[in-house]
Amino acid sequence: MSNAYILTQMTWPEVEAALKTVKIAIIPLGAHEQHGPHMVESCDAVLAEEMGKRLTARLYPEALLTPTINMGVSPHHLHFPGTISLEPSTVIAILRDIIKSLKSQGIEKFLVINSHGGNQATLGVAADTLTAELGVSFFYAKTTASAKDVMDKRIESKLYGHSCDREVSEAMYLAPHLVRPDQLEKGDIQEGRWKKLRPGSPIQGFYYYEEMTRNGCIGDATKASRDIGEEIVETALERLTQAVRDML
Amino acid sequence: MSNAYILTQMTWPEVEAALKTVKIAIIPLGAHEQHGPHMVESCDAVLAEEMGKRLTARLYPEALLTPTINMGVSPHHLHFPGTISLEPSTVIAILRDIIKSLKSQGIEKFLVINSHGGNQATLGVAADTLTAELGVSFFYAKTTASAKDVMDKRIESKLYGHSCDREVSEAMYLAPHLVRPDQLEKGDIQEGRWKKLRPGSPIQGFYYYEEMTRNGCIGDATKASRDIGEEIVETALERLTQAVRDML
Amino acid sequence: MSNAYILTQMTWPEVEAALKTVKIAIIPLGAHEQHGPHMVESCDAVLAEEMGKRLTARLYPEALLTPTINMGVSPHHLHFPGTISLEPSTVIAILRDIIKSLKSQGIEKFLVINSHGGNQATLGVAADTLTAELGVSFFYAKTTASAKDVMDKRIESKLYGHSCDREVSEAMYLAPHLVRPDQLEKGDIQEGRWKKLRPGSPIQGFYYYEEMTRNGCIGDATKASRDIGEEIVETALERLTQAVRDML
Amino acid sequence: MSNAYILTQMTWPEVEAALKTVKIAIIPLGAHEQHGPHMVESCDAVLAEEMGKRLTARLYPEALLTPTINMGVSPHHLHFPGTISLEPSTVIAILRDIIKSLKSQGIEKFLVINSHGGNQATLGVAADTLTAELGVSFFYAKTTASAKDVMDKRIESKLYGHSCDREVSEAMYLAPHLVRPDQLEKGDIQEGRWKKLRPGSPIQGFYYYEEMTRNGCIGDATKASRDIGEEIVETALERLTQAVRDML
Amino acid sequence: MSNAYILTQMTWPEVEAALKTVKIAIIPLGAHEQHGPHMVESCDAVLAEEMGKRLTARLYPEALLTPTINMGVSPHHLHFPGTISLEPSTVIAILRDIIKSLKSQGIEKFLVINSHGGNQATLGVAADTLTAELGVSFFYAKTTASAKDVMDKRIESKLYGHSCDREVSEAMYLAPHLVRPDQLEKGDIQEGRWKKLRPGSPIQGFYYYEEMTRNGCIGDATKASRDIGEEIVETALERLTQAVRDML
Amino acid sequence: MSNAYILTQMTWPEVEAALKTVKIAIIPLGAHEQHGPHMVESCDAVLAEEMGKRLTARLYPEALLTPTINMGVSPHHLHFPGTISLEPSTVIAILRDIIKSLKSQGIEKFLVINSHGGNQATLGVAADTLTAELGVSFFYAKTTASAKDVMDKRIESKLYGHSCDREVSEAMYLAPHLVRPDQLEKGDIQEGRWKKLRPGSPIQGFYYYEEMTRNGCIGDATKASRDIGEEIVETALERLTQAVRDML
Repeated sequence: MSNAYILTQMTWPEVEAALKTVKIAIIPLGAHEQHGPHMVESCDAVLAEEMGKRLTARLYPEALLTPTINMGVSPHHLHFPGTISLEPSTVIAILRDIIKSLKSQGIEKFLVINSHGGNQATLGVAADTLTAELGVSFFYAKTTASAKDVMDKRIESKLYGHSCDREVSEAMYLAPHLVRPDQLEKGDIQEGRWKKLRPGSPIQGFYYYEEMTRNGCIGDATKASRDIGEEIVETALERLTQAVRDML
Repeated sequence: MSNAYILTQMTWPEVEAALKTVKIAIIPLGAHEQHGPHMVESCDAVLAEEMGKRLTARLYPEALLTPTINMGVSPHHLHFPGTISLEPSTVIAILRDIIKSLKSQGIEKFLVINSHGGNQATLGVAADTLTAELGVSFFYAKTTASAKDVMDKRIESKLYGHSCDREVSEAMYLAPHLVRPDQLEKGDIQEGRWKKLRPGSPIQGFYYYEEMTRNGCIGDATKASRDIGEEIVETALERLTQAVRDML
Repeated sequence: MSNAYILTQMTWPEVEAALKTVKIAIIPLGAHEQHGPHMVESCDAVLAEEMGKRLTARLYPEALLTPTINMGVSPHHLHFPGTISLEPSTVIAILRDIIKSLKSQGIEKFLVINSHGGNQATLGVAADTLTAELGVSFFYAKTTASAKDVMDKRIESKLYGHSCDREVSEAMYLAPHLVRPDQLEKGDIQEGRWKKLRPGSPIQGFYYYEEMTRNGCIGDATKASRDIGEEIVETALERLTQAVRDML
Repeated sequence: MSNAYILTQMTWPEVEAALKTVKIAIIPLGAHEQHGPHMVESCDAVLAEEMGKRLTARLYPEALLTPTINMGVSPHHLHFPGTISLEPSTVIAILRDIIKSLKSQGIEKFLVINSHGGNQATLGVAADTLTAELGVSFFYAKTTASAKDVMDKRIESKLYGHSCDREVSEAMYLAPHLVRPDQLEKGDIQEGRWKKLRPGSPIQGFYYYEEMTRNGCIGDATKASRDIGEEIVETALERLTQAVRDML
Repeated sequence: MSNAYILTQMTWPEVEAALKTVKIAIIPLGAHEQHGPHMVESCDAVLAEEMGKRLTARLYPEALLTPTINMGVSPHHLHFPGTISLEPSTVIAILRDIIKSLKSQGIEKFLVINSHGGNQATLGVAADTLTAELGVSFFYAKTTASAKDVMDKRIESKLYGHSCDREVSEAMYLAPHLVRPDQLEKGDIQEGRWKKLRPGSPIQGFYYYEEMTRNGCIGDATKASRDIGEEIVETALERLTQAVRDML
Repeated sequence: MSNAYILTQMTWPEVEAALKTVKIAIIPLGAHEQHGPHMVESCDAVLAEEMGKRLTARLYPEALLTPTINMGVSPHHLHFPGTISLEPSTVIAILRDIIKSLKSQGIEKFLVINSHGGNQATLGVAADTLTAELGVSFFYAKTTASAKDVMDKRIESKLYGHSCDREVSEAMYLAPHLVRPDQLEKGDIQEGRWKKLRPGSPIQGFYYYEEMTRNGCIGDATKASRDIGEEIVETALERLTQAVRDML
């Protein structure tokens, strides 16, 4: 990654110089939660950061990457050991503080690059409130959601989205140390009311993840590959880059 | 609407009797916001209440309808005269108070029947927080979203969702007094960054509604009809009824 | 009710036109609480709205009626089935959001027309805080309190104020569908510490309503009449109209 | 004042012994605000404390006096130099902390003895919320309000209630150092909208005290006397003592 | 104490005159907590107020003393009867309200004179937040901490700091009524994990005071004297006076 | 680092197994703030994490390292480009959420290992509030403060503590990539009121870091060495390990 403004790796005189061209700050938002037996719990935080780094590099010298928010809203996973869940209000407080700090230094546009579906409602609320409260442009994106067509083509599982063929593939490409290749397992799905509360059902509602899957993953991680990951990630990065450019 | 437990129309001895069979409280959630020149601003509140009444009747004697939350999260519309927007935290506070009150009287399941897309992120956050905080089952549904297939079939406009062919049709069937039939107008859409921030775009973000449409509506209300409304509404009600039954 | 700016029944172009003359927004505030065996639980919300409509009509074209806040602060009634109580902080949050929204559109004076005694302390706190916080003029009124002399003349009960001769009379005139005429009952008062905590006692304090009355009402609703209601309501409206005019 | 449990003057072993008989904690609540040219700004705090001491003595050994909350809700007076106003939420936070602390030590009943009218709405809200939240009995009293009949008999001014004949008389009896006897002045009242917002008017609302009186006082302090103060105070104390006894 | 601006003892015209020269408000902050068998529980509040008065006198006519915050953050002492502990957020709310009130009247510098070690962390947080939030200069001082060298010279106990040789000496000089001279006791120290959590240990953490001392005091109060108190207090006052002068 | 329970690197079945012996969770808390021209802004976050890892390894199998809180309370540095400051309430919210999550999984003791002086007051407040609120043991430590004697011996600068001889030395040993060896500079100190507000002065207060040092560092980083860092770090780790053991 040749040139990229990565705030954690810069001194203040370097930041001062960068601010002459920077127009947008990119905030990686992840989670700390169980990802089944074959992925470590920092998965979402690392993937968000890796995507953020690549996107920031592509947008050089107009973008700057902030530190990663390495925990997120994960109440559904709390019954699996090791999961940490922040309240939605805590995540919004962190975002507010980051944005206020950097706005005082001249940045007026912000993009949260989010790897965890469970954060999306909180980000919707953040967009509705922080925009007017802080007087900034607030954007957010699910890391690879824009490559939905590639997923449709390459992912065989019908129910996927957590430590699945897609996510493990992305990790194999972006951060292979997240994966335990010798532990790959298919989701151990069980029956339950969750089926009738998924997106697309007439009603939605909270359920615990263990109601859906005994081993904490869905889809079929054994079908993941670095190649699938690469196609998803690179496609999404291309589209995200263009989408951010359109807002600068 | 023969039999239905509508809390606003009951005395306490009647509620006491009803609670012997009631298992779920249905909370209508609307908005108070501009709906273009052809619908009055209470549109969402009234449609949520009407849907709530019908759903409660179908679920008799297991459901009870609470008073309607007649304002919602509408910052996007604030620049149009008359719009009132509640903070997401205010809507969650109202939901908390309703649920706490009724839980103390024995109800443990709650469904928010929501007519306004702008409330969905707030409801997602509510589901993530109130479930554990209050020890209840919390469900929510967009009023007619489950009839998406009917919309695909009957609605011609590509971009619809606010004071459009669909919503006006629903109002013609459920509450025709909301519509000014002699004022029906097509959405006066204009170019803008909103196109690149809609659901399905690589990134999302806040924009004001007047960036998208000069007259405050989208789609083409001149193509609305009571018949379309009836098919959408009745299909949705059928599916919602079954979905709620599955949770009781 | 010929001319009156009722926000729930207006489109945004109509509101835009109205704002040329409107100087004050009138916010009806009610409650959702038990009213004994002879009144439905939406009583206060409906009465506040009806009073608000009439007052707004009298103040045409200088007043505009907002949506009704249809629940209020009712902890005293929570042990009666169906009662919903909002926290004082929730009611203040709703008021803040309404006022902020409409102030951004040019209105700078607000009157809360409140039908429920249990909201008065909250409104006092709202007046002390929202005035300076939002930079507006904030007024509030108990719906018919200004007709105290008429009540003294026409109401026979010594202890009245909730689902009593007065309130039932007002409802008979303003919204007869709130009353179950065949269920009218005198308050079933019992002894208790409440007697020593009423306004006028050396000390005040919280007590539950069932400590005071077994059937949830006080006074004697069997003595209510539409005629009494008319005199109270019309007298109060006359005085409220003049009082608001004095503030414009 | 022979025997009285005054917490500020006790050691912990003395408190431990007292708690064997104490059933109620009495919390003096005052204000820090202008009282015209003839009373010092701590007036309300001192009067509340003096009343609290006397009441606690009369209720010995069942009552215990807490430290005085020596500032209160005084936004109306903020434009007079020296006035300090606490937010209603701050006063409630202090009350919550005092009550939680002492409840953990075994006290379950609390009386706020309040000298400042501007605190009454906040105390009403406190009663509505802290009772259930903390599981205690919460009472409050305006220091001498129960001697209204004595005031009617002895006070000549029609408009009184702040640094007036009544309050100066009370201070002459309870804490004469609060009064500047050589500065006694009649209230310098002026016309204004305040007249139409006083208790008893059809509508209420916030106004600044200087809109009503140029010198910050009302009534006629030149007619105050220690004798009037004594009759008011002793009558009120007698009635408060009995009222509290009725709750133990 | 000849000349000193003590807000509790002034009328508003006197405050108005004083504000012509006043540059800083001094806010005494104490605590209400057990002080063993030989000091009353208001000890910290009284000592803070006495120090504040003397400091204000020395800084005449540039300083003004506000009312005393007579309770503080004392969770460590809550198991001793009579202790009242405010939440840190409550103390900060009180400070915010005092500062906002007086800033609106022209004061822009504030010094909290604090007698209680348990408040120091809260004051650190207050300094970090209120400075920017309110746009003021915010200073704080532990009452006699600046006389550390005198303490080193005159205090024999190794572990002191609460109702000890030092504090009792200060009280003998500043407010002898706080001390029960016939009850003076050495701290009844016991073994425990507290030893490894004191300032200076590798880790810090919360412990209850009774884990450290059975009678609630440390050090050796029997060695206290008015003379020691005088030297500590006067030395500290001299240094505080100079330190404040440097900030005006 | 052979064996150590590092939560970010574990799967949930691994955590489940670890929880059989784990007694304490260690939470690294850093900051994101300017560190002069010779250290990158993530310095504190990385040092806290590195210290946390080593301490966790030494305490194996009784300790578990949580994700790092990689931003902290840094208002003093906000005027230097790139600094991000969290509100104290935000940091406490994050701590609360981490502790609640892990307590629900069986951990009851928590140690925050903090590298940033500006977080200490917030941690003091956290200890005072979270202990009772969450029912846990809450400890905190400044990373190397326990090696004060080594610093006294090895550090020549009189004023040090931020991007100084000490901190750069620690980084050279723990995470040399944080240091720009070719940019090492002595602190460019200037006169100012800060000198009279430092710890040890009679009064404390907020000042901006640029009031003290033009280049954002103090001390003399040119005198730093890996060897000094090693002695400080290893000494501190030894003492922290023992101190934690004493609490298990």
